[in-house]
Amino acid sequence: MDVGFIGLGAMGQPMARNLAKAGHTVTVWNRTRARSEQLLEAGGRVAASPQDACRGDAVFSMLADDAAVESVFFGHEDLLGALGEETIHISSSTISVAFARRLTEAHRAAKHALLAAPVFGRPSAAEAAQLVMAVAGPSEAIARCRPLFDALAKKTVVVGEAPPAANVFKLAGNFLIGAALEALGEAFTLMRKSGMDPRVFYDTMTTTLFAAPVYQGYGSLILEEKYRPAGFTVGLGLKDARLVLAAADIASAPMPLANIIHDHLLTAMAQGRHDDDWSSLARVVAENAGL
Amino acid sequence: MDVGFIGLGAMGQPMARNLAKAGHTVTVWNRTRARSEQLLEAGGRVAASPQDACRGDAVFSMLADDAAVESVFFGHEDLLGALGEETIHISSSTISVAFARRLTEAHRAAKHALLAAPVFGRPSAAEAAQLVMAVAGPSEAIARCRPLFDALAKKTVVVGEAPPAANVFKLAGNFLIGAALEALGEAFTLMRKSGMDPRVFYDTMTTTLFAAPVYQGYGSLILEEKYRPAGFTVGLGLKDARLVLAAADIASAPMPLANIIHDHLLTAMAQGRHDDDWSSLARVVAENAGL
Amino acid sequence: MDVGFIGLGAMGQPMARNLAKAGHTVTVWNRTRARSEQLLEAGGRVAASPQDACRGDAVFSMLADDAAVESVFFGHEDLLGALGEETIHISSSTISVAFARRLTEAHRAAKHALLAAPVFGRPSAAEAAQLVMAVAGPSEAIARCRPLFDALAKKTVVVGEAPPAANVFKLAGNFLIGAALEALGEAFTLMRKSGMDPRVFYDTMTTTLFAAPVYQGYGSLILEEKYRPAGFTVGLGLKDARLVLAAADIASAPMPLANIIHDHLLTAMAQGRHDDDWSSLARVVAENAGL
Amino acid sequence: MDVGFIGLGAMGQPMARNLAKAGHTVTVWNRTRARSEQLLEAGGRVAASPQDACRGDAVFSMLADDAAVESVFFGHEDLLGALGEETIHISSSTISVAFARRLTEAHRAAKHALLAAPVFGRPSAAEAAQLVMAVAGPSEAIARCRPLFDALAKKTVVVGEAPPAANVFKLAGNFLIGAALEALGEAFTLMRKSGMDPRVFYDTMTTTLFAAPVYQGYGSLILEEKYRPAGFTVGLGLKDARLVLAAADIASAPMPLANIIHDHLLTAMAQGRHDDDWSSLARVVAENAGL
Repeated sequence: MDVGFIGLGAMGQPMARNLAKAGHTVTVWNRTRARSEQLLEAGGRVAASPQDACRGDAVFSMLADDAAVESVFFGHEDLLGALGEETIHISSSTISVAFARRLTEAHRAAKHALLAAPVFGRPSAAEAAQLVMAVAGPSEAIARCRPLFDALAKKTVVVGEAPPAANVFKLAGNFLIGAALEALGEAFTLMRKSGMDPRVFYDTMTTTLFAAPVYQGYGSLILEEKYRPAGFTVGLGLKDARLVLAAADIASAPMPLANIIHDHLLTAMAQGRHDDDWSSLARVVAENAGL
Repeated sequence: MDVGFIGLGAMGQPMARNLAKAGHTVTVWNRTRARSEQLLEAGGRVAASPQDACRGDAVFSMLADDAAVESVFFGHEDLLGALGEETIHISSSTISVAFARRLTEAHRAAKHALLAAPVFGRPSAAEAAQLVMAVAGPSEAIARCRPLFDALAKKTVVVGEAPPAANVFKLAGNFLIGAALEALGEAFTLMRKSGMDPRVFYDTMTTTLFAAPVYQGYGSLILEEKYRPAGFTVGLGLKDARLVLAAADIASAPMPLANIIHDHLLTAMAQGRHDDDWSSLARVVAENAGL
Repeated sequence: MDVGFIGLGAMGQPMARNLAKAGHTVTVWNRTRARSEQLLEAGGRVAASPQDACRGDAVFSMLADDAAVESVFFGHEDLLGALGEETIHISSSTISVAFARRLTEAHRAAKHALLAAPVFGRPSAAEAAQLVMAVAGPSEAIARCRPLFDALAKKTVVVGEAPPAANVFKLAGNFLIGAALEALGEAFTLMRKSGMDPRVFYDTMTTTLFAAPVYQGYGSLILEEKYRPAGFTVGLGLKDARLVLAAADIASAPMPLANIIHDHLLTAMAQGRHDDDWSSLARVVAENAGL
Repeated sequence: MDVGFIGLGAMGQPMARNLAKAGHTVTVWNRTRARSEQLLEAGGRVAASPQDACRGDAVFSMLADDAAVESVFFGHEDLLGALGEETIHISSSTISVAFARRLTEAHRAAKHALLAAPVFGRPSAAEAAQLVMAVAGPSEAIARCRPLFDALAKKTVVVGEAPPAANVFKLAGNFLIGAALEALGEAFTLMRKSGMDPRVFYDTMTTTLFAAPVYQGYGSLILEEKYRPAGFTVGLGLKDARLVLAAADIASAPMPLANIIHDHLLTAMAQGRHDDDWSSLARVVAENAGL
């Protein structure tokens, strides 16, 4: 397929490369051109302008936040206006539900197909085409883009017809991870303050009741207090905690555990640990116990 | 080995039976005699008196709470006084850390060996000898009792030399499960209030990032809102939430997530749902969102 | 003085009237003209257009929220553009800190003086010119507007030079009230569930340690469970809870008690009690205890 | 009247002295005799034995906690057994509701009159006979002891017929104070992190909406961060937070705000600030915001 890719950050870069490797014609654009050029060797093509990337069968956008998507699609670059008549916009950015609704509305008004397709996985999973992808939008558009998803993800799930549902899905998933971090932080702290080494607990739980990647991977980081380099920073974790609470607000659904995650990340932020891994919210828990 | 068993409840009954099946000589005692007699067909022997069950190589106690253990070991029956000189007391009850310390102190003073050996697993796991057992106490005593543990558990982990450590371990494990219930409850509620069916989310998460028994089993109960019959009741969950908070208090370790679990179980209790499964704390979360 | 007044809601109406009564020339504008005309008998003048109200010595705006202020000052009506060269804009609306910053910036760029002057008090206090007013902005502009404040408030405090400080001040004040509601709700519930009548407690506390208007007034509402008619609705309380949490987010200051207030109001909202008095967050507390 | 007094700590000492000053015959006993002798100059009499203090018209006990009351009344000294036939026991200690129930039961079984009469006020208020006293028990006994209460308190309120009700009352009152500390801590922190001096806010609120002793007194301590010397320590505050949560547990009444107070005091404790004033829970709030 002929596909554009807007936004070549830590996730976008390997995703675009995998699309090219899978044989698709990929036209990339990034605000700083240097990142685009790295795609050339993988067979990608650098767009002359952002508009230029929006005229194939589909165009992915993988940007930092609401503001970035707003600026590129509604602001100066006006990519919404530049979309080809048949081009499907696949929005993979982690954005707010409110903005996802606005994006949906704007595409509908302009008669463009929009899919929301946020992903789960760290850059290494993107590299290995092992992402988990949650897609929502018109089923016919999803069907047409299936080959693209297959080039990126080990698993693609269809969440619903309304694009914002995929954003809720993504935020709920990140919340579930944050909840596991908080739980591990509290359990390990209880043990350390009770004079115990939490390692036996970690080993036991992650091979029995909690034998799952999140507990195994993050549990090990928390056990070792290895918060640098970050796979996903406190800053990004806090952004997502805010988004999940905003989604909960819209839905009138109190989420007290999300509040705790948010507050602990906010403390980490206030203490200048913006760039530590977000699993370091467990460090806030430990410090609150005097460790 | 020659082993006694005090307390034949939903867990104790199958545990005693498995000891007998494994070829050990088992002498059981229960406050209501009827339960003891069920052991006869498995080859067990009914003790003439509780003291009678305390004179072999080891004696298990599997009782409801601090008060039950206190009454049997320190009160009227005075089993601490009745312990044979070489008999190792294996305490498998889920008790408070404070009481575990007192129990430890009393055994030390009376020169008796004490092991704390609480278990993870529901009655069906006890039946199948598939428990996970956390043992703490003198390593020599642990070594001697190993054949007994092997008859009960698929995995036995040694937590430390001080018996109360195993109680902290058990409480921390139950806390981790409660945290997962709360997290699932909040995530599913967010979805339902956002107009989505949480099933796709459940299916995705429990086959990828959270592909672990706790999320799979309890997630399904919460999804179906199937809170009867209870595998583990609100009442028992609340008891454990209190114990973990008491342990945190002793250790000076704030556990805000444990507070939430406690409060939601307390609401379920206050609403008369004592006998629902403790995963119904997710129902409190849902009701707080108007569902 | 010659003063305009934009927004004649439950608070704006009596405030504009008091300005007129104090001898100022008042030109009012409201989106629905009927409300403006009620001012005529108090000696006010109805503006031909909103712009018309913005050309005297000062113009108050007292609008519902960020969106209303944005629409009137930056949107279609473009009142920022219509401000007289010497006209001081006195913003009394309860708005977000982020929007207050933007408003400040826009006035600075357009070389107009802006004062933030949110008020504490219910409509009855506005009526009686007994408001408490928190003012922030250039001290010279504050000095010039002093006669206006004196016509409205029993007490005017100067919070600082930067207008958004007054908005933080207002939100912090409302938070303090919300905290008292939550505290009273929990204390009364504890008593009722302990088989006691909380009235003696209310009487004792509000005449000794807590002998202050907030505890006396709201305490009585909660005691009587008299949540209709609302002095200040759940909907408005929730709006303010969101604003205080947004301000806390900007300041990197975790506010766990504000989270609780927010969540209880959100539950009231989810249960369809939008129009009850916000002190009914105590009802959510009571229901969580099975009352 | 002829009255005994057991426990001459920071509160008991001035209370016993005021009883003597009011013309009552006071017989005091304290575990360390030195404290008793200070009463001599006020006209008090030092008991030869604790039993000796229990034979007049009434005997006050003002002890540190459940354990102290248990040891003196049920343990070695067995004061319950030593009570004169007509002697009314007035328990002023801050004890748990569970223990208050047990105390009530034991007095009923032994046919002795028990009044619970905990007090509000710091040692300086005790000195000045300006306490607020909450009394519960048989109304006839209350009537007989009225002259004693009048010698101690500026206000005595009758809470009910069941003694434990007064203990709930006392704990709820302390909770209300703790809630105000938390609220002030969060509000001041929000301001400081927003670049503002919270003093104007303090001055405004404590002369208007919150013009009450608790906000004025504690607000000033928090503003100045003056946490030494303590009027009431973190250790004592934490003890009371535990008691209120235990009372809530018994009553099946979730108290999320009490959890926050407890957790912040626990952090202060874990950081070694046991002897700071309990208003320093505001310091934990500030540190969580990076201050």
